[in-house]
Amino acid sequence: MPHREAAKANLKNLYRIFTVPEAPDSTLGHIDQAISRDVAGFLQEHVVALERRLEDIEEDFAESRIPETPAFVSDYTEFLKEKLVAQSVHTASPGFIGHMTSAIPYFMLPLSRIMMALNQNLVKVETSKAFTPLERQVLAMLHRLVYSGDDAFYERWIHDSEHALGAFCSGGTVANITALWAARNRLCGPSGSFGGIAREGLAMALQHLDCTGLAILSSRRAHYSLGKTADILGIGRDNLIAVNTDDRNRIDMADLRRHCQRLRDRGIRPLALVGIAGTTETGNVDPLDEMADLAAELQCHFHVDAAWGGPTLFSATHRHRLRGIERADSVTLDAHKQLYVPMGAGMVVFKDPAALSAVEHHAAYIIRRGSKDLGSRTLEGSRPGMAMLVHAGLSIIGRKGYELLIDQGIERALRFAAMISDDPDFELVTEPELNILTYRYNPATVQKALSTATEEKRRQINAQLDRLTKNIQKLQRADGKSFVSRTRLAADRYGGDTVTVFRVVLANPLTTEPLLESVLEEQRTLVSRQEIAPLVEKLQALTSA
Amino acid sequence: MPHREAAKANLKNLYRIFTVPEAPDSTLGHIDQAISRDVAGFLQEHVVALERRLEDIEEDFAESRIPETPAFVSDYTEFLKEKLVAQSVHTASPGFIGHMTSAIPYFMLPLSRIMMALNQNLVKVETSKAFTPLERQVLAMLHRLVYSGDDAFYERWIHDSEHALGAFCSGGTVANITALWAARNRLCGPSGSFGGIAREGLAMALQHLDCTGLAILSSRRAHYSLGKTADILGIGRDNLIAVNTDDRNRIDMADLRRHCQRLRDRGIRPLALVGIAGTTETGNVDPLDEMADLAAELQCHFHVDAAWGGPTLFSATHRHRLRGIERADSVTLDAHKQLYVPMGAGMVVFKDPAALSAVEHHAAYIIRRGSKDLGSRTLEGSRPGMAMLVHAGLSIIGRKGYELLIDQGIERALRFAAMISDDPDFELVTEPELNILTYRYNPATVQKALSTATEEKRRQINAQLDRLTKNIQKLQRADGKSFVSRTRLAADRYGGDTVTVFRVVLANPLTTEPLLESVLEEQRTLVSRQEIAPLVEKLQALTSA
Repeated sequence: MPHREAAKANLKNLYRIFTVPEAPDSTLGHIDQAISRDVAGFLQEHVVALERRLEDIEEDFAESRIPETPAFVSDYTEFLKEKLVAQSVHTASPGFIGHMTSAIPYFMLPLSRIMMALNQNLVKVETSKAFTPLERQVLAMLHRLVYSGDDAFYERWIHDSEHALGAFCSGGTVANITALWAARNRLCGPSGSFGGIAREGLAMALQHLDCTGLAILSSRRAHYSLGKTADILGIGRDNLIAVNTDDRNRIDMADLRRHCQRLRDRGIRPLALVGIAGTTETGNVDPLDEMADLAAELQCHFHVDAAWGGPTLFSATHRHRLRGIERADSVTLDAHKQLYVPMGAGMVVFKDPAALSAVEHHAAYIIRRGSKDLGSRTLEGSRPGMAMLVHAGLSIIGRKGYELLIDQGIERALRFAAMISDDPDFELVTEPELNILTYRYNPATVQKALSTATEEKRRQINAQLDRLTKNIQKLQRADGKSFVSRTRLAADRYGGDTVTVFRVVLANPLTTEPLLESVLEEQRTLVSRQEIAPLVEKLQALTSA
Repeated sequence: MPHREAAKANLKNLYRIFTVPEAPDSTLGHIDQAISRDVAGFLQEHVVALERRLEDIEEDFAESRIPETPAFVSDYTEFLKEKLVAQSVHTASPGFIGHMTSAIPYFMLPLSRIMMALNQNLVKVETSKAFTPLERQVLAMLHRLVYSGDDAFYERWIHDSEHALGAFCSGGTVANITALWAARNRLCGPSGSFGGIAREGLAMALQHLDCTGLAILSSRRAHYSLGKTADILGIGRDNLIAVNTDDRNRIDMADLRRHCQRLRDRGIRPLALVGIAGTTETGNVDPLDEMADLAAELQCHFHVDAAWGGPTLFSATHRHRLRGIERADSVTLDAHKQLYVPMGAGMVVFKDPAALSAVEHHAAYIIRRGSKDLGSRTLEGSRPGMAMLVHAGLSIIGRKGYELLIDQGIERALRFAAMISDDPDFELVTEPELNILTYRYNPATVQKALSTATEEKRRQINAQLDRLTKNIQKLQRADGKSFVSRTRLAADRYGGDTVTVFRVVLANPLTTEPLLESVLEEQRTLVSRQEIAPLVEKLQALTSA
C-alpha cells in the first residue's frame, strides 16, 4: 500500500475509535459487555487482595516509552484484567475494614457511565448547562444538612450567581485548603490603602494586621491535610498548633486556651480554630460548641473538618454528637466516604453565602463577572460532574437510608468493641464514638504484667507489642483474606506512651459480625506463624522476667 | 407490619443496593443496559444543546431538602434522562468547537467502568496496589515525552519510593499550583537556622532571603490559574507580572527583561518564569528556549504550562514549536485535553526527581516514610485511579495515533483560517499556530472603513463590532446547532484596542470541513435575525458616515 493510502487507512481507524458503536454485537459492544461481566465477577469475590510483592507488580509497569503503534482494545483489556484488576485491592470487600473505603451502591456504576459519557466541565455553564444548577443544588442540600437554614434562605441563595453556598472539589484536602484560603483572605481583606492579601501577598498582610504571623489551631488528631494547608498558604507548619487531646481524643480546651495566650504573647494572630468531626484515626468528635464559643471570643474563623463524620447528621440518634457544627463558618464533607460515592468528591460549605467572595476570580473567556459559572469560586479549574453521583446517592438512598447506614455502622463498631474487650487475647485501645476503633493483640498475661511494670519495663513491653502488631498487620494484608490498617497513638493508660494499634473503620454495610469474629481469629492464628514466633518469644521473656 | 419488622425490611432493601446484581435480567441489569443504549443514542446525536433558559432548568434543581425516603433507581434514571441528560451540553459534538472539549474515544467508557468499580484510592498502596506502579509509569512516560531521558534514567527513578518524576492531579490548575509550590519551597528551603518556608512561613522566608517579595513572571496570555496560584501561595496577585506579548501572542522577551530589572530595583526576587505552550485563548507558544536562558541567568525556576499544547510533542512535524520545553524545571500537562481522557486528569512532571521533596509530607497511618505511597508528594489526598485511563489512551492510541490527531487538528485549523480569510464577511484575528484561532464577523466594507478611520471612529466601530460578535455568539449558542466561544483580545492592528472575538478550538477529530463551512454560514444567517438587525444598522451608519 503506498504511503498516502496507508495514512488514510490509519486516519480512518483512528476516527473509528471516536465514534459510537451502533450495534451491541459490534466488537466494542462485545468488549463492553464482557467488561460488565468481569467487573461484576470481581465485585462478587470477597478476597481482599492477591499475595504478590509490589516489586513484582512494578515489573509489569516498568516501560517508560510510550508505545509507538496503536493496540487493539481487546488486547489491552486482557492486559488490564491480568495485570491491573487481578492485582488491585478489593476496597469494596466486606473484609477490607482498614481504611475509609466501602462497597458502593451498585447503581453508581451505570450512573457513572452517564457522567463519563456526557464529560461535562463544571468550570463554566457553557460546558455543563444543567450540571451547574445540579451542583448548586447538591451544595445547598449539604449546607442545609449542616446549617438547617429555612426555605426562604435557600430560595434566596441557591442559584444566586454572585454567591456560593460552598465549593465542590476533588476531595477533603482541597476542601480544607479552600476553607482556610477563604478564611485567610477574609481576615486580610482590602482595607484603606491595603489592597488585600490576594493582591499584595502574605508579608504585606502581616504588616497591615500588625502581627508577626497567623496560626491555625487544631488537635493533634487533625488530618495531615492541615499541615499541607499551612504550608501552601504561606502560614508555615510551625504555625499549625497541635493541641493536646483528652482521653477520648478530643481537643483539650484548656490547652487550646493556653496556646492562644502564648500566640498572643508572640504577636501571632489566630486565623482559625479547626474542630474535627470524626478524627481519621479514631473517629472522635471535638467539643464543637465550646470551640465555637472560643472562636467567637477570639473573633477568628471556625472550620470543622467533617470529611468523615459529617453524614452522622443524618441520624436522629447520633447527630447530637456533632452539636455546635451549625456554628462553624465552614465545614468540609467528603461524599466519597460516608455518602458512598466513588472516589473524587469532596465539598466545603460556608455558613455565609458571601464567604467565598474572598477568593473570587475571573477571566475574559470564561467565569466572567455576573455569569453563573461555578469556576469563579473554586480552587480547581476544569472539573468533572461528580456532583451528579452525590445527587443520585441523596435521591436514591434518601435521608432515611443514610440514617440506617450510619446507625448500623456505629452499632457494628460497638459490637466489635465488645467482642475485643471480651477476648482475653486482645486489648481495645480506643473505644468507638462513631464507627472507628483501634485495638491490638495483647494477651491477658501481658496486660497484667503491663499494669504492674516499672516505667522502663512498660516501655520495653509496649515496644515489643508494637513490633508484633506491625508484623501481624503486614502478614494479614499479605494473606489477603482481610485487612485492618495500623497507626500509632499516644495511650493515656500507658503514661502517654505511643503505641502501634490496629485501626478498623466499619462503614461497609456488607461487613457482618461473623466476619469480624474471623478477623480476630485470623490474627490469633497469625501469632503462631513462624515469622512471628521470635517476637512472641521475646514478649514472653519480657513479661515473665 | 410492626416497627421492628419494617426496620428489618428497610435494612434488607438497603443491603440490596450494595450487592452486585448476579443476572443480566435483574432490574438493575435492565437499567444498566438501557443506560448504555441511551448514552450511545445521546452520543450519536450531533446537536450541541437544546434551547432552554438556565433559569428554567434551575427550577428542576431548586429543592434544598435532602429527600426523606429512598427512591427507585428506575425512577431516578428517568429523572436524569429528562432533566439532566437532555439539558446537558454535547461537549463531544463535532459542532462544539468553542472550548477545549472533544469527543473521547469510545473505549474510555467501558474502561472507566473498571476504574469506577475498583474504586481505588491512589493516596496509598494499601488502597491501590497495582494502580500505584501504573500511575508512576504514566508519569514516567509523560516525563520521557518531555525530557527524553535515557533508559537508565527511568530505570533508576520510575519506582523509587524516595522520589517522584511528577504528580498526578485533578487538572491543570492543581498541576500549576503544585509546580510553583515546589519551586517556592525549594527557593526558600531550610538553611542554617532557618527551618524553611514549609515550616516557618512566607514572611520569615522573605526575611531570610532578604527580599521584599517573590514574583512570578508570565505573559498576559497566561491561564487564570496562575493568578489563583499567586494568591494561594501567599505571593499576591500584584506579584504575578503580566508581560506584554508580540504580534503572535508570545511573551515579549525585552519587556520580560525590563520587568525583571524593575523587580530587582524593588527588592523583589523572581521565583519563576512561566512559559506557555499553547495559550488558552489563541494557542500560541512562548519562545521557551529564550525563557530557559533567562531563567538560568536569573537562577530561578522555569515552569512551562503545556496543559493544552504538551501533546504536540507527539508530532514529528510540529514538536519543534515547543523547543526548549526540555529545559523547563517543571511542565504541566492535561490528559483530559489533548490526550482525550475524560475530565479530571492533570499532571505535572519535574526534570529533577528530587524536586517534589520540597513539598513532601507524612502521617502516622499512611504515606509513612519510605513507603511507596504516592500521597506523600501530592497536593490532593485521596484520589481516583484516573491514571488508568491515561495509560489506556497511551497504549491503545499509541504515539503514532496521537501524532495523527495533533497533525490533523493543526491542518484543520489552517484550513479553517484560510476559509475565514477568503470570506469577505469575516476577519481572522489570530492565526493558528497550533489548533486554536480567533476571528469575528466583519464585512469587507467595514474592514475597509476601519483601515482609514480616525482613532475615535475606529474605537466606535470596534465597540459596535464587539456588541455584534457577543450577540451572534449568544444566539448561536442558544440555537444549539454549533458552538464557538468568545473572548476579548488586544489587537495590534487596531492600535492595541481590545476586541471581542469568536474563539475556536479544533481538537475533535469528528469535526469536518463542511461542518466548519456551515458554522460560518450559520453566523452569516444570524446577522439578518431580528434581534441583531439594530446592531447591524448602527454599524452601517457608523461606517457610511
